[in-house]
Amino acid sequence: MGKNFIDIKDFSKEDIIEILNRAKELKHLNKPKNVNLGLLKDKNIYFLFFEPSTRTKMSFLKAASLLGATTFDFETSKSSLNKGESLIETLVNLESLGADAFIIRVKEVGFFDILKNKIKASLINAGEGTYRHPSQALLDLYTLWEEYDYDFEKLKNLKITIIGDIKNSRVARSLLKLFSLFEIKTFIYGPSTYLLENPEVYNTEILNSLEEALNISDVIILLRIQLERQNAKKYFPSLKTYNYFYGLSLEKIKNIKKNIKIMHPGPFNEGVEINSELAYSNCSLIFKQVNNGVFVRAAILEKLLKI
Amino acid sequence: MGKNFIDIKDFSKEDIIEILNRAKELKHLNKPKNVNLGLLKDKNIYFLFFEPSTRTKMSFLKAASLLGATTFDFETSKSSLNKGESLIETLVNLESLGADAFIIRVKEVGFFDILKNKIKASLINAGEGTYRHPSQALLDLYTLWEEYDYDFEKLKNLKITIIGDIKNSRVARSLLKLFSLFEIKTFIYGPSTYLLENPEVYNTEILNSLEEALNISDVIILLRIQLERQNAKKYFPSLKTYNYFYGLSLEKIKNIKKNIKIMHPGPFNEGVEINSELAYSNCSLIFKQVNNGVFVRAAILEKLLKI
Amino acid sequence: MGKNFIDIKDFSKEDIIEILNRAKELKHLNKPKNVNLGLLKDKNIYFLFFEPSTRTKMSFLKAASLLGATTFDFETSKSSLNKGESLIETLVNLESLGADAFIIRVKEVGFFDILKNKIKASLINAGEGTYRHPSQALLDLYTLWEEYDYDFEKLKNLKITIIGDIKNSRVARSLLKLFSLFEIKTFIYGPSTYLLENPEVYNTEILNSLEEALNISDVIILLRIQLERQNAKKYFPSLKTYNYFYGLSLEKIKNIKKNIKIMHPGPFNEGVEINSELAYSNCSLIFKQVNNGVFVRAAILEKLLKI
Repeated sequence: MGKNFIDIKDFSKEDIIEILNRAKELKHLNKPKNVNLGLLKDKNIYFLFFEPSTRTKMSFLKAASLLGATTFDFETSKSSLNKGESLIETLVNLESLGADAFIIRVKEVGFFDILKNKIKASLINAGEGTYRHPSQALLDLYTLWEEYDYDFEKLKNLKITIIGDIKNSRVARSLLKLFSLFEIKTFIYGPSTYLLENPEVYNTEILNSLEEALNISDVIILLRIQLERQNAKKYFPSLKTYNYFYGLSLEKIKNIKKNIKIMHPGPFNEGVEINSELAYSNCSLIFKQVNNGVFVRAAILEKLLKI
Repeated sequence: MGKNFIDIKDFSKEDIIEILNRAKELKHLNKPKNVNLGLLKDKNIYFLFFEPSTRTKMSFLKAASLLGATTFDFETSKSSLNKGESLIETLVNLESLGADAFIIRVKEVGFFDILKNKIKASLINAGEGTYRHPSQALLDLYTLWEEYDYDFEKLKNLKITIIGDIKNSRVARSLLKLFSLFEIKTFIYGPSTYLLENPEVYNTEILNSLEEALNISDVIILLRIQLERQNAKKYFPSLKTYNYFYGLSLEKIKNIKKNIKIMHPGPFNEGVEINSELAYSNCSLIFKQVNNGVFVRAAILEKLLKI
Repeated sequence: MGKNFIDIKDFSKEDIIEILNRAKELKHLNKPKNVNLGLLKDKNIYFLFFEPSTRTKMSFLKAASLLGATTFDFETSKSSLNKGESLIETLVNLESLGADAFIIRVKEVGFFDILKNKIKASLINAGEGTYRHPSQALLDLYTLWEEYDYDFEKLKNLKITIIGDIKNSRVARSLLKLFSLFEIKTFIYGPSTYLLENPEVYNTEILNSLEEALNISDVIILLRIQLERQNAKKYFPSLKTYNYFYGLSLEKIKNIKKNIKIMHPGPFNEGVEINSELAYSNCSLIFKQVNNGVFVRAAILEKLLKI
């Protein structure tokens, strides 16, 4: 294991299992009150978010707070980047100030690969364009692991379907890689233009209908339709059409026999890929995902930064 | 007393008296140096300010710091709300991250009423459109209580006049309710279109001239003319006219016999409702209000959050 | 020594020597791990940055963190200044909240002079238009002092040339004053319209060519071409021309015999006043400047605020 968490493959399967176990411990230590464990009290973590974020940024901030790290928010809109400073120079400067880690969200795919040889501090990917979002994948795996009695064998017996714009989803790509590593069986479904051309690379299969997905899946992971990225695409189904063919509601799943579980990385578009009634129902793991994210990210930070 | 402070009536008179007494204690504990009392060190407080604010936000931040709470600033302009996430989903998410309290300023009146049944964490109103600003009212009451020897009986003998746009002032509405609860006699004065249609509901009376206000009042509370809200209104008197008829200056009050006290919730429009000379004079309680705000808000946070 | 650090002359030569020595100590205390010394744990420092900044703001934040001060970021774009509140009223308000110090960057030259008689808290200049940037000058002096064996006598034997837009550089003005105080010999060079009309006031001399500068100098301090300020000026040489006549590269200095050192206050315009190859070379002190800035600023804060 290196100093960075840019991609799922920066951690071995053993690293990941260790992180999940540590996240479980941290979650218990933080109950019933918020605590500051002080484990990273000599670490300075800089946040650079070049794209909007609610939960990921807030989740990492809370994770840092849980471990007692000192955090600095680099305000991406008000900084010297306005003066034409390159991002690499900025990071070298922040490293000179004493940065131990950078938590970065960027639009530009491949940015981390340029950066990783120039920076000694840890680089943590908090969302990279449409490409990768590895900490989200880890927290989703944790949530399932917790839900199925902390038993990886049970996870291998599951059928998980990801529905939505797989091709342009950084969450989906990271999830498929991670589930493949843990030998969890996945399927994908969505508008045909949004599916993968090479599903076999990710050890996944394309389903043919929502009905099929509902019938075979134990867990369905819905993806957010990224309105802000898709706006210009003419061939995109209308939101109403999307909702009809690909969206879920409590109504749609009520006739399914088994206790199907619904996940979503958030933020969800109410009435498009999911309706609120379902999101807030007992089937939904959505807010457990958010809660678990804190502890998984804390475990990641601790693993990378604690000596 | 519940978990929220959305409206003056969320606290009983006894609660309020307890808060004022605790604010007095906290003020003394914080002298001569800033302290961190650590009383809320296991509490996570999230700030969501959807309208500009200087002193209210900074005051609550300082109050949280005094008690040792961990604060998180939800940047309202850069967040996933840009991605269409609903505010309620955002709050549920932040609660899933471990939020113990939300300090919120919003434009939309009634927002808190929708929210309060969906959120378990404490909700604290830091300014709600033109409707309510209860923590400002409490700090104003504290400032008067301190000024009159911490004696509620003396407050009952006062005559307090609020001058300005009463109808559209969240401060005025909350103040009138609170003073009524404490049986403090109030009057209001301002341009006729800005007065209340039902002053008796608030146990207050409309005065007829600035002269009358100056003659009968022990305390005058000036309100800010909200230029940004009023811009479109044609019937609004010009700022110069407003200043002439409703504004105060050291010059205008110098012939008043008694030691009249001037309050203003800030920020003031210099040369409109008040001039700087008066704001910085000995008659002015304005900067005492700001200072006291810290301790009153700390007492509110402590009361809501400490178990 | 007063409570403020607005101008180099707010400190005596002895004060400055004390600060440099303390910065050296703090730098050693902070190795190999980031520490929180807790020396200013009862101090509240407010940051007001009205112009973009990366390293200065982040440097002061890290300095405050090193000393354990509590920091508050006054968001200059979202505050009540939008409501027409004057900056002086804002500072008086923040002082009423308990501010012990203000670290301020402003565009308006002379702002600090108006402010200093109205505010009791410490005022620290973090960049004032084109006029002054005293903490940058101190960190540059520290970097040279460190580089030359902490020996002020060695500094007196140096020849230092500042190249660029001297006239409009707040860094250059503060540096020239400080170097003059320490009897360090300086030269300046740049486009003729950018030089000083009165170099003798600053005990400096104008050079005639880049070749001359390279031949006589032990240290060259490059200044950033301030594209955002110069945009409108027609007589400004093009960036390409500037780079040809005034910019440095590893190529240009490779034939110089002695080990010339290159400094730059940053952020640099790659390919204009310097190229990256040189900035990241062994000749460059640029990132040492950034690192040292933390400890020099911490020493300044400690000197002003510790009782």
